[in-house]
Amino acid sequence: MTALVAGAESRAAVFAGLALAALVFNPAGDAAAKPLTVADLLAGSPAADWRMPDPEDTLYMDLARGRVVIELASRVAPQHAANIRALARAHYFDGLAIVRVQDNYVVQWGDPDHHRAVPAGVRAGVEFTAAAGAAARFEPLPDRDAYAPQVGFLDGFPAARDPRSHVVWLAHCYGMVGAGRDDPPESDGTEMYAVIGHAPRQLDRNVALVGRVLQGMELLSSLPRGSGEMGFYVPSEATVPIRSVRIAADVPKAERTPVEVLRTNSATFRAVVDQRRQRNEPWFKFSPDHIDLCNVPLPVRAIPAAGL
Amino acid sequence: MTALVAGAESRAAVFAGLALAALVFNPAGDAAAKPLTVADLLAGSPAADWRMPDPEDTLYMDLARGRVVIELASRVAPQHAANIRALARAHYFDGLAIVRVQDNYVVQWGDPDHHRAVPAGVRAGVEFTAAAGAAARFEPLPDRDAYAPQVGFLDGFPAARDPRSHVVWLAHCYGMVGAGRDDPPESDGTEMYAVIGHAPRQLDRNVALVGRVLQGMELLSSLPRGSGEMGFYVPSEATVPIRSVRIAADVPKAERTPVEVLRTNSATFRAVVDQRRQRNEPWFKFSPDHIDLCNVPLPVRAIPAAGL
Repeated sequence: MTALVAGAESRAAVFAGLALAALVFNPAGDAAAKPLTVADLLAGSPAADWRMPDPEDTLYMDLARGRVVIELASRVAPQHAANIRALARAHYFDGLAIVRVQDNYVVQWGDPDHHRAVPAGVRAGVEFTAAAGAAARFEPLPDRDAYAPQVGFLDGFPAARDPRSHVVWLAHCYGMVGAGRDDPPESDGTEMYAVIGHAPRQLDRNVALVGRVLQGMELLSSLPRGSGEMGFYVPSEATVPIRSVRIAADVPKAERTPVEVLRTNSATFRAVVDQRRQRNEPWFKFSPDHIDLCNVPLPVRAIPAAGL
Repeated sequence: MTALVAGAESRAAVFAGLALAALVFNPAGDAAAKPLTVADLLAGSPAADWRMPDPEDTLYMDLARGRVVIELASRVAPQHAANIRALARAHYFDGLAIVRVQDNYVVQWGDPDHHRAVPAGVRAGVEFTAAAGAAARFEPLPDRDAYAPQVGFLDGFPAARDPRSHVVWLAHCYGMVGAGRDDPPESDGTEMYAVIGHAPRQLDRNVALVGRVLQGMELLSSLPRGSGEMGFYVPSEATVPIRSVRIAADVPKAERTPVEVLRTNSATFRAVVDQRRQRNEPWFKFSPDHIDLCNVPLPVRAIPAAGL
């Protein structure tokens, strides 16, 4: 069986979220110049290059088909993160459903009719850009971007910055999770969406992004598309029930899904990005010499139970 | 039920491939300044702004779940188009399967083990860039791009151009269809793929793009992801059988799926792009004032049977 698209040379085991096999030339420069795959880079990375998301910032959305693990961007959108924690702790989402799946756009879940009582303490707000202090944590990517003057990473999430105003915001890449809203622009976290298509960057600074899917993305992206307007499921279509949404910290340890995320300020991450920017492997006949923010892999790996 | 993401103001019927409701200000400037949705722009468009793809360039891939309609870029990649016509006419794909579904990347089908005999006349070749004469047909988009010096449209497909060399090539946007290859770089069309995620523009000029999905994209994008390396289905997973792949010209008229495509050189198309670039509707608090090539909608509409 041949791979045929991008990377037939390498058959290293697929890494979570990094399925494209890819090669770089060995920086050690040994005689054989053995090319390193991204999987090799990750396998050889020091433990310190990885972080485990705070269980207080980790959301488990359990569906019949499996668990979706989401990391909340709690320092970027603290009010929404607090709201979502309060909603999960009040079991607000349990028994609600995924109500919208629009091809090449978003999956959306929650309570679109606002029938459920919102727990005390949940306050609607506007967090289109990052809370104060984010500019100092922003890690720029050298690559150009056409939607923002500068792009990079903030707390491990894809982000953008205006160097004049020092304003920083998260970017609508594949797998990012936001708080849906109507107009006026306040949102409270009772409606959430995940991006399942080409990055709708026009939404940046127009809606609050609150995190990203770390694991289980395919459980959302492979859902049947809704045939209603804007991908909403119509009454003749089964919505997808949400069994529960929990904060990982509230889940017994034996029932957690431990994952680690590669630190975006690590040497391993820089090597991964450079490999993906240059594509030096033989399959590529033309080096892109560029990487789009939303094509940068943000590696996640499962932690074996024995490793806890 | 509220829409919550992008365009709650408008509930006009969703148009194929254009599900995001969107408003523009009425160019007629009437007193009410009634905003026009993209659906309004399309509904009010003259018939001459639409074209019906040549049945010789239209591929039907019939799956148990429905029909995928693909337009071949026969002037851009004439050798691959000829190969694919010959393969379809030899019933080469019938009974083969979709063998790979990699999340946020591609769906791939064909004969990965090359067990089937390839019909006479099918010749492997390299068509990474457009055949001679394309530069004169290229329609530039004014918007910046970070992968190519210039982007726009060629024969209705998203494309890019190097203004110095006058080389033009198709771009790996969502829904584009390519001819998979191994290394060496020749391909013959026996393996095909469609993009189901964020545009993998690093593949541009590295593999032959041969067309795009006009209808039925969701039949591909919602398939279960393969759990094998690079998203290949493993033996324990059912592959997705292909009932048949036919050239529309060979299908009795009563069994065809007639569609029309908005011409990219039409005034209606320009108005649609401008609306999507500016996002003047009230929901948007920040105008992107930019559109990514792969976020430009390429409207397709079904033709009622009575219209034939």
